[in-house]
Amino acid sequence: MITLKELATSQQLTFQGNGDTTLSSVATLEKAQADQISFLANPAYRKYLNNTQAGAVILTAEMADHYDGNALISENPYVVFAHVAQKLNQSPAKAAEIHPTAAIEPSAQLGQDVSVGPLAVIAADAKVGDRCQLGAHVCIGEGVVMGQDCDIKTGAIIEAGCILGDRVIVHPGAVIGADGFGLARDHDGWVKIPQTGVVELGNDCEVGANTTIDRGAIENTVLGDDVRLDNQIQIGHNVRVGDHTIMAGCVAVAGSAVIGENCLIGGGAGIVGHISICDGTTIQAMSLVTHDIKKAGSYSAAAPLQPTKLWRKNAVRARQLDQIARRVNRMEKKLND
Amino acid sequence: MITLKELATSQQLTFQGNGDTTLSSVATLEKAQADQISFLANPAYRKYLNNTQAGAVILTAEMADHYDGNALISENPYVVFAHVAQKLNQSPAKAAEIHPTAAIEPSAQLGQDVSVGPLAVIAADAKVGDRCQLGAHVCIGEGVVMGQDCDIKTGAIIEAGCILGDRVIVHPGAVIGADGFGLARDHDGWVKIPQTGVVELGNDCEVGANTTIDRGAIENTVLGDDVRLDNQIQIGHNVRVGDHTIMAGCVAVAGSAVIGENCLIGGGAGIVGHISICDGTTIQAMSLVTHDIKKAGSYSAAAPLQPTKLWRKNAVRARQLDQIARRVNRMEKKLND
Amino acid sequence: MITLKELATSQQLTFQGNGDTTLSSVATLEKAQADQISFLANPAYRKYLNNTQAGAVILTAEMADHYDGNALISENPYVVFAHVAQKLNQSPAKAAEIHPTAAIEPSAQLGQDVSVGPLAVIAADAKVGDRCQLGAHVCIGEGVVMGQDCDIKTGAIIEAGCILGDRVIVHPGAVIGADGFGLARDHDGWVKIPQTGVVELGNDCEVGANTTIDRGAIENTVLGDDVRLDNQIQIGHNVRVGDHTIMAGCVAVAGSAVIGENCLIGGGAGIVGHISICDGTTIQAMSLVTHDIKKAGSYSAAAPLQPTKLWRKNAVRARQLDQIARRVNRMEKKLND
Repeated sequence: MITLKELATSQQLTFQGNGDTTLSSVATLEKAQADQISFLANPAYRKYLNNTQAGAVILTAEMADHYDGNALISENPYVVFAHVAQKLNQSPAKAAEIHPTAAIEPSAQLGQDVSVGPLAVIAADAKVGDRCQLGAHVCIGEGVVMGQDCDIKTGAIIEAGCILGDRVIVHPGAVIGADGFGLARDHDGWVKIPQTGVVELGNDCEVGANTTIDRGAIENTVLGDDVRLDNQIQIGHNVRVGDHTIMAGCVAVAGSAVIGENCLIGGGAGIVGHISICDGTTIQAMSLVTHDIKKAGSYSAAAPLQPTKLWRKNAVRARQLDQIARRVNRMEKKLND
Repeated sequence: MITLKELATSQQLTFQGNGDTTLSSVATLEKAQADQISFLANPAYRKYLNNTQAGAVILTAEMADHYDGNALISENPYVVFAHVAQKLNQSPAKAAEIHPTAAIEPSAQLGQDVSVGPLAVIAADAKVGDRCQLGAHVCIGEGVVMGQDCDIKTGAIIEAGCILGDRVIVHPGAVIGADGFGLARDHDGWVKIPQTGVVELGNDCEVGANTTIDRGAIENTVLGDDVRLDNQIQIGHNVRVGDHTIMAGCVAVAGSAVIGENCLIGGGAGIVGHISICDGTTIQAMSLVTHDIKKAGSYSAAAPLQPTKLWRKNAVRARQLDQIARRVNRMEKKLND
Repeated sequence: MITLKELATSQQLTFQGNGDTTLSSVATLEKAQADQISFLANPAYRKYLNNTQAGAVILTAEMADHYDGNALISENPYVVFAHVAQKLNQSPAKAAEIHPTAAIEPSAQLGQDVSVGPLAVIAADAKVGDRCQLGAHVCIGEGVVMGQDCDIKTGAIIEAGCILGDRVIVHPGAVIGADGFGLARDHDGWVKIPQTGVVELGNDCEVGANTTIDRGAIENTVLGDDVRLDNQIQIGHNVRVGDHTIMAGCVAVAGSAVIGENCLIGGGAGIVGHISICDGTTIQAMSLVTHDIKKAGSYSAAAPLQPTKLWRKNAVRARQLDQIARRVNRMEKKLND
């Protein structure tokens, strides 16, 4: 429970309307009640603004001019919404508890106020920083080093030797530090290359549910600070990802690729191994990157959706495209002669 | 063990041949023995019909005219096969058992005849309906509400507050209710938006192995009744999926997408966020949907497979396609003048 | 610790330089110290050869001619590196241990020197071969049969009845033997087809982290010997994969597809159901295979990456491709007349 005025002060923002309005939670414009605060960031939802019942709305100054109700004014309503939602969502801290069913090796070192859920495993020589929370069924491998305030959710697995910074969030079912896919072909079959590196995650990284990040083959797989990975992503061995880069669900990054800082990688995109992508690059959804990208910007590859009947005809022609282009060249020459 | 005649009666179907033939299990046409029943639904397997050793075969009336052996007659042999296979596969009900190693909070409420596997976790205030079966290592979060006759398989995770209907099947390693991927970009990095909604699954939903369904950001992520998801699928926060829609493996649905009823989404397809797909839509495998679909039908995008040598030439031209089209326009104009 | 000379002898190779150089581990050319051995396989890293501090380098004879330092000579440096890395990575065998928190049914049969990690589950009638290692939280289902020297990593799940050969490696979070996706559409909804087959894995198979392999619908899903699957792969029911075939991350193989021996399937590729791919086929990354492949070779489909602005123009034309081709045909006819 906080008043609009208090909220404005805490966020160093101005407001319009009744500053004494009390707000207890966040909601969408459509569903908000009188004690809730909403926001407008996506213009597609502008139609809901006039009829919202929200106690206050986070708006740009320009939008606020067209709105009579209570508003918190910011150039970036979405970021302010994020901060406000965090503030209103704070639950009273639970007392840290080590569940009696957890299997913790005596040589593991737990910091102050660490919580460990039911049936979690902490292997020998692991170090878990202050105030970390390990959910039910989490497995922390031998010699893992984890900073402070990490949140490792249900069933997440961190394999031996991996190194996590502070405030890292690992979502359920994620696997950090499985073997990379390193195989050499001998006459009679594949020979496995021992994967002796680890995974290093910087501060404030987030790893989505069922995402996998492989350990390095010789050197390490390294994510910088504030790298955010959605669910079902695969990061191959020895990949390096720069600070603040973000990847949507189901991205696949092959071994030894290097991705710069502040990149946005769209859902289902693929990045082949041993290439570099420069800082500030955006890759659109389901695009395959096969070469270095040296110039920041937005890149796309996905073929456009079409009615299947039309697609069938076009797909036939796509296979003849080089031929068609050559015929166009010839005709042009003929016409110009 | 059931006779062909009894089977026909139970399914309200007619049969041809010896109704006293006893049948104990199902098999393919190729491998079936005299006490097994098979079916023919895919014309590609018609060649196996004449030589089958099956005790009976489920056939359309038209096909049965060309077959001398015992047959169960139906317009839809595949559906009848499904019902018959279920009937013949019924194992004698095991006595419900709570494994002594399961970690169940005292405030959790378990219905009648609930089974809980070894080392499963049921958190505080969770409600598990009658006859639910929870496999080994299943984790049920705080306050989860689960209907009757659900089957939650090995190592599946249902996070706090999620709501499941009756007869929901969750396959191994699936994660229901992880945080959605909600981040706002501030000057110095990403700010996490608390994900305060849950996941609601209707009756008869099925969630594949290692599939992930994120909880809503503010409101809920909602799947209707009889939604069937294969393995390795990612469903983003606040997605809504209509009744009877089915998705093949590795589909990715981004946040706030709305998918209608009775849709078929092919394997590896991608659906971007904040769009709508109408009832009865089919999306072919590995197609990316980037806009609303307002007309039911089949849609495709995936580029056609080619020998790599040819593909290289065509790929160069694909990048020049707009130029080629403009040159065609110009030539046409010249020719028509 | 081994000398270059001893290493050469053990690998049946020749060397150049000081055979008494002692080597204790492997490293990259860039980072290697005087007691480490490196290799050069990828020409892109040739630039690092002249300045390497490595105690020895594995090189082809041709490369060794241009290198003054110690070298181990082989036609296939990468394979030799794999063998050498395995040799130098051998850790002293830990004593086999059954962790006291593991839940093992009395009827399960464990071979000699089997290790079982904390909170692992072995169900009734499972057979685990000599020297198998089961990590923390592994679940082995009822009646599973596992050969010798398998390595089942943290949290991997092998469902009831599945059959594993010798030396199989299953990485964390993988699910072997979940139900296949078998559903028949009845008037009022989907009817589930019982999945009564199992998964069979040959000797020396490797299954990546969070990869899923479904059990067969009636018959089995079968992987031959030395099949290597990376992470996040989905293998549908009744798929068959030949010996030595290898798949990179995020591949999806739909039900009843048959893939030959010695195939290479690139990351994110998709293979539709009920098709056959012949021995020795290479499928490039993110390509969709929709028809049988009867001729060995390399195949591609992924659309080429372009700046998004250019892509938008080309995507419009891609939808008009058949029309453009028809117009080219007409013009050509006109010009030839």
